[in-house]
Amino acid sequence: MDILLIGASGTIGKAVAHELGQRHRIISAGRSSGDEHVDLRDLASVTALFERVGPVDAVIATAGNVHFGALAEFTPEHYAIGLNDKLMGQVNLVLAGQKVVRDGGSFTLTSGILSDDPIRYGSSASMVNAALEGFARGAAIELARGLRINVVSPTVLSESLAGYGPYFRGFESVPAARVALAYSKSVEGLQTGQIYRVG
Amino acid sequence: MDILLIGASGTIGKAVAHELGQRHRIISAGRSSGDEHVDLRDLASVTALFERVGPVDAVIATAGNVHFGALAEFTPEHYAIGLNDKLMGQVNLVLAGQKVVRDGGSFTLTSGILSDDPIRYGSSASMVNAALEGFARGAAIELARGLRINVVSPTVLSESLAGYGPYFRGFESVPAARVALAYSKSVEGLQTGQIYRVG
Ligand SMILES: NC(=O)c1ccc[n+]([C@@H]2O[C@H](COP(=O)([O-])OP(=O)(O)OC[C@H]3O[C@@H](n4cnc5c(N)ncnc54)[C@H](OP(=O)(O)O)[C@@H]3O)[C@@H](O)[C@H]2O)c1
Ligand SMILES: NC(=O)c1ccc[n+]([C@@H]2O[C@H](COP(=O)([O-])OP(=O)(O)OC[C@H]3O[C@@H](n4cnc5c(N)ncnc54)[C@H](OP(=O)(O)O)[C@@H]3O)[C@@H](O)[C@H]2O)c1
Repeated sequence: MDILLIGASGTIGKAVAHELGQRHRIISAGRSSGDEHVDLRDLASVTALFERVGPVDAVIATAGNVHFGALAEFTPEHYAIGLNDKLMGQVNLVLAGQKVVRDGGSFTLTSGILSDDPIRYGSSASMVNAALEGFARGAAIELARGLRINVVSPTVLSESLAGYGPYFRGFESVPAARVALAYSKSVEGLQTGQIYRVG
Repeated sequence: MDILLIGASGTIGKAVAHELGQRHRIISAGRSSGDEHVDLRDLASVTALFERVGPVDAVIATAGNVHFGALAEFTPEHYAIGLNDKLMGQVNLVLAGQKVVRDGGSFTLTSGILSDDPIRYGSSASMVNAALEGFARGAAIELARGLRINVVSPTVLSESLAGYGPYFRGFESVPAARVALAYSKSVEGLQTGQIYRVG
């Protein structure tokens, strides 16, 4: 398969590239890293990416930022960061990609455990992760030509504990290599509309 | 209790006003109807509403619009309608209200069954409803002074079948009076972080 992987240089992306790169051709992308540069927040940038790359069998996003902060200090602009970046960034991939991905191909997006298991400062992450999961359930039944869509929702990664650990006390972490298996299941299997919770 | 009900003139809002109005003072609000006028999409308008109304014991939102359309024709601007209106409109109530609602008071927001049970044309509704539920789970653990937040997620209302029926074939509808009970449970009970699915 030809697999377009946006966020390939990241903690999760590297593990996904390693897992799927053993069997498939990976086209890596990022804002400033990888074979191709793209800003997911901008649909025109995403459309241009697909024009350069051409038809692929799978699109994976392991990218997306949200603002973390106290609910008492959150503003609409803080929520807009996550809505425009992690949520609509990944949705833009589906909007543009549904015209380009080959029949039976797949989209695999990334949410995160905070949709269900909230932490202090995480109201935007909980919002955006849940939104991605709802979107995928809705999009799965409308996609044409056998196109599929799933979401991987990992808990905190073992590789990220050094940075995020204090916010995730008591959460069991998961190695990136295990998270990567969920992307493999989504891309190489036939399921659609699924949320793969890993952790 | 003093209960601020935004969307009071609507199908759900009228039933909520009837149920809770038997025991409490209802301050009704809407864009162009009710005791008070407000545009939930605009945080300044919501802040001004709370300045006029003053402290209340409960805030209920039974308002919020999303765009319905084919996934193949959806644009980011179509998704922005629901994100700005139904999602951020209700979130704005919490952002402004958390400073004004009395200790132990509650927010009760409205999502809908499409977060879990998608229909054709409903990818934005599924996204926004799930986002509201994720937000509420996240906000519930951060709200100060014993403030609470819950979401009511109704299936299609019997009173709305005349309009929405063709999109909800096979869905069992629920009378508005039954949906109103979930708002009563949220406001008059002590639970927080709950999604009350009615249907
Ligand atoms: N790490 C965890 O523990 C964890 C757990 C659960 C969920 N998640 C979620 O998984 C996703 C990836 O996390 P990560 O820790 O692997 O991230 P990361 O290490 O920070 O890597 C992010 C990757 O995404 C790319 N990227 C970021 N914003 C982009 C944009 N607007 N357009 C295109 N590419 C963009 C980056 O490219 P450049 O470097 O070129 O900018 C980079 O390749 C995030 O959404 C995160 O919330 C992470
Ligand atoms: N009806 C159903 O079957 C059903 C099922 C599940 C979920 N829901 C959800 O429940 C909510 C209410 O549905 P409904 O059928 O009761 O709606 P509705 O009959 O159309 O009434 C909407 C109410 O909300 C107010 N409103 C709308 N936009 C507003 C804004 N930006 N700012 C302030 N007020 C605003 C309206 O005020 P004005 O009239 O003054 O403009 C009106 O009072 C919606 O979010 C809907 O998605 C409905």
